[in-house]
Amino acid sequence: MPREIGRVLLVGAGPGSADLLTIRALRAIEGADALLYDALVSDEVLALAPRACTCIQTGKRAAGASMAQETINALMLRLAAKGLTVVRLKGGDPSVFGRSGEEVDFLSARGVPVEVVPGVTAASAAAAQFSFPLTHRGAARRLVFATARADGGPLVEDGWASGADPQATLALYMGRDSIAAVFERLIAAGRAPSTPALAVENAGRPEARLLRGTLASLPALLAAMAPGGPVVLIVGEVAARARSAEVVGAGSVEPARIAV
Amino acid sequence: MPREIGRVLLVGAGPGSADLLTIRALRAIEGADALLYDALVSDEVLALAPRACTCIQTGKRAAGASMAQETINALMLRLAAKGLTVVRLKGGDPSVFGRSGEEVDFLSARGVPVEVVPGVTAASAAAAQFSFPLTHRGAARRLVFATARADGGPLVEDGWASGADPQATLALYMGRDSIAAVFERLIAAGRAPSTPALAVENAGRPEARLLRGTLASLPALLAAMAPGGPVVLIVGEVAARARSAEVVGAGSVEPARIAV
Repeated sequence: MPREIGRVLLVGAGPGSADLLTIRALRAIEGADALLYDALVSDEVLALAPRACTCIQTGKRAAGASMAQETINALMLRLAAKGLTVVRLKGGDPSVFGRSGEEVDFLSARGVPVEVVPGVTAASAAAAQFSFPLTHRGAARRLVFATARADGGPLVEDGWASGADPQATLALYMGRDSIAAVFERLIAAGRAPSTPALAVENAGRPEARLLRGTLASLPALLAAMAPGGPVVLIVGEVAARARSAEVVGAGSVEPARIAV
Repeated sequence: MPREIGRVLLVGAGPGSADLLTIRALRAIEGADALLYDALVSDEVLALAPRACTCIQTGKRAAGASMAQETINALMLRLAAKGLTVVRLKGGDPSVFGRSGEEVDFLSARGVPVEVVPGVTAASAAAAQFSFPLTHRGAARRLVFATARADGGPLVEDGWASGADPQATLALYMGRDSIAAVFERLIAAGRAPSTPALAVENAGRPEARLLRGTLASLPALLAAMAPGGPVVLIVGEVAARARSAEVVGAGSVEPARIAV
């Protein structure tokens, strides 16, 4: 006897602070029967799930093991087949380096209704938190998102000419461990070693840390800082405009006074 | 006698549906004494401002005139100098083609505390609404945001090699009026005319419309559709994966049934 099938919502959890969830994402989490979450989803966000909701971690934190994509797919299908509302919660925006295409394909092919709820991606969160733009008239006309993985991944392959585009801001995700190889490759491709660059650890969270440098200097600085959290790298003229949270930021300074 | 100065929040309104605001953005709007909004901000979002809040439109809709950036800057300064909490509300994310850099510079130089609240950008909203990814393993390793303005703007200049990158998804903002010139240039730069391409009007809103084609065919199709709202263009292999809201989408279909 066929049973009424549930549905899966692929939901962007944003950068981690619960108030950077969209209202639609908050409602999805509050209405979840089952919740599968990636390692980048914060405890603050997970705490919003109902008590009765089954919460399952799918991504590794620190030394733990990650679930294979096939296992995650099978689990979503099994839970939805029970008639449950399943929330698949991903850090940032599910459409940007979030494998939403693979999960939508798998579920749709099996008749499971899928809906995607967008989120604030890490680069936007970093830019907002440290008050620099990702595009800027005359200086940064394009914005390129790429991953900085060195395992045969995007940036380290040959032939990515746009890496050297002086009018582009590069936002490099998963940048913590491969910054040296990636920045070397960008310089080799023709981007100036003096190009401003930032590393932002835990972008969008209260504990975020900002590190400033250049294409030439940032890799050594980041190695010395030894971040434990996820890092987004920003390369381009806009990186010189970052202001630390101590200068301008939510509630972190006394209001300035000016004569009026 | 110096008076206590107010502050300015540069807030991303997201794609237009009120439930795609972040919770932080909603709180900012609800706490605004004065609100300056761009043309892309929806009435649904504006309705969230308090009754006593002064709401000022700064961007043109249809045939109206836009305020000059200098006028907007001076207005924000004057309102903040009165001690008001000023919300500068922009469609999408203020850091992406939102001139946040210019406004942060102006206000910070005059001692006005500024905070930026990120938002969901139009490309993320379009991808979520029509269930296609912006990056996809093996097919779309990079994501490039650019504007499609033809007035000497980014894409139409010479020398933008990355326009032809077959591994990149291009998200082209402000694409309605210059699609023909921009797509012609992309083909001339080496991108295949058969590359899948989408136009999404009013991305992220209930009235959104999706138009499918290729680099070669989409300009004529879009001209025939004659959209009145803002359009984001998506170019790349991921565009072939878009599903219309009639197939999978929030509440638009009866739940499918499968045997379990």
